[in-house]
Amino acid sequence: MATNTAEDRLARLGIRLPEPPTPFGAYVPAVQAGTLLFLSGMLATSGHATTVAGTVGKDLDVTAGRAAAYTAAVNALALVKQQLGSLDRVSRVVRLGVYVAATPEYTQHPTVADSASELFRDVFGAEAVSSRLVFGVASLPLGSPVELEVILEVKP
Amino acid sequence: MATNTAEDRLARLGIRLPEPPTPFGAYVPAVQAGTLLFLSGMLATSGHATTVAGTVGKDLDVTAGRAAAYTAAVNALALVKQQLGSLDRVSRVVRLGVYVAATPEYTQHPTVADSASELFRDVFGAEAVSSRLVFGVASLPLGSPVELEVILEVKP
Amino acid sequence: MATNTAEDRLARLGIRLPEPPTPFGAYVPAVQAGTLLFLSGMLATSGHATTVAGTVGKDLDVTAGRAAAYTAAVNALALVKQQLGSLDRVSRVVRLGVYVAATPEYTQHPTVADSASELFRDVFGAEAVSSRLVFGVASLPLGSPVELEVILEVKP
Repeated sequence: MATNTAEDRLARLGIRLPEPPTPFGAYVPAVQAGTLLFLSGMLATSGHATTVAGTVGKDLDVTAGRAAAYTAAVNALALVKQQLGSLDRVSRVVRLGVYVAATPEYTQHPTVADSASELFRDVFGAEAVSSRLVFGVASLPLGSPVELEVILEVKP
Repeated sequence: MATNTAEDRLARLGIRLPEPPTPFGAYVPAVQAGTLLFLSGMLATSGHATTVAGTVGKDLDVTAGRAAAYTAAVNALALVKQQLGSLDRVSRVVRLGVYVAATPEYTQHPTVADSASELFRDVFGAEAVSSRLVFGVASLPLGSPVELEVILEVKP
Repeated sequence: MATNTAEDRLARLGIRLPEPPTPFGAYVPAVQAGTLLFLSGMLATSGHATTVAGTVGKDLDVTAGRAAAYTAAVNALALVKQQLGSLDRVSRVVRLGVYVAATPEYTQHPTVADSASELFRDVFGAEAVSSRLVFGVASLPLGSPVELEVILEVKP
């Protein structure tokens, strides 16, 4: 019988999760408080190197920005799986913050952010879609073009 | 008998709430987890257009920045009313983040932010006043000069 | 008998807490919701004046940025003590956000942030280490080079 869980959807999307990101300093990848799981900031990285670097609106266009947000979102999925054992333990994405290294003139942040939002919707389902916070920052660690803030609700 | 609830105070202030903001992408306007209600980022918008655009400290002065923060705060009230049915269901504003599109030299962010803080205090009452986080960002969606992050505690 | 609580560790580190920061506007220093304590943004201040001002990567180097993050972190400890009566009531640092006023080219934000993370680890213990969010902002209130966002879990 076909089921329709986050793990099922991830498999159907053909996404293979990478090794989850490890900290760059004196912090941990995630902390659970009650039923809320707070992830550390997810970057467009593979290991401790960025997959792409630069400022959106100057070095990078919206397509490259979306690719960076997607990479960061896949990293978040890998981390959630490591922390909880299964993506199916997520009941809701409570908050998704998408912080884009962008020029002062940039206005298309929501299009960049949608790349991460759409992946989370496709994996966790339409009923688990997050609230969202999006803004342009001056610069990000390692020169990553995007950083994600993720707060999830975990099934008890 | 006179009462002194958030809805009463809103009426006495003569504020008519606009249509609440609708999402620009794959997210929802708000998510409740336990007793915490997380709003999506509130901008200086009416419908999907900004009421004012630009960078505070360059295109806009502190008065225009305060007006933008006020518009975003009224949008937040409209959204809370839509989500909860009544502003009276709010027990506390837990976190107010005020993110100002500002120049590197700008320092008056707290004065801009107070415009939103004062409205929330006047509506929800002095005993419900929030913690606050304020900083200058490089740019915001649609060119909005201000974005608000709002986390509220809802009565059980 | 030697004990090993946050207050013990603070004393052994020889740190004397300053007067905790007071608000610059219509907000409160901290709000507790359930077991989560949300602090208002902590700056590199003493009283209502910055101890150092400027942009990291332009006016200030990484060492000055780390000193600013340390000052803000000590302010956070002073505020937690005031709010809870004792640092020993903290069970976990859930979220540490380190927002650095930085140039668009800056990439060493994690090194700046570690200065705050390491102090919290040394005081609250390795088992209470936070998740972390770090990015470069355009500017900060009063010209502070660093602002901290702190969410703590409090013992019931």
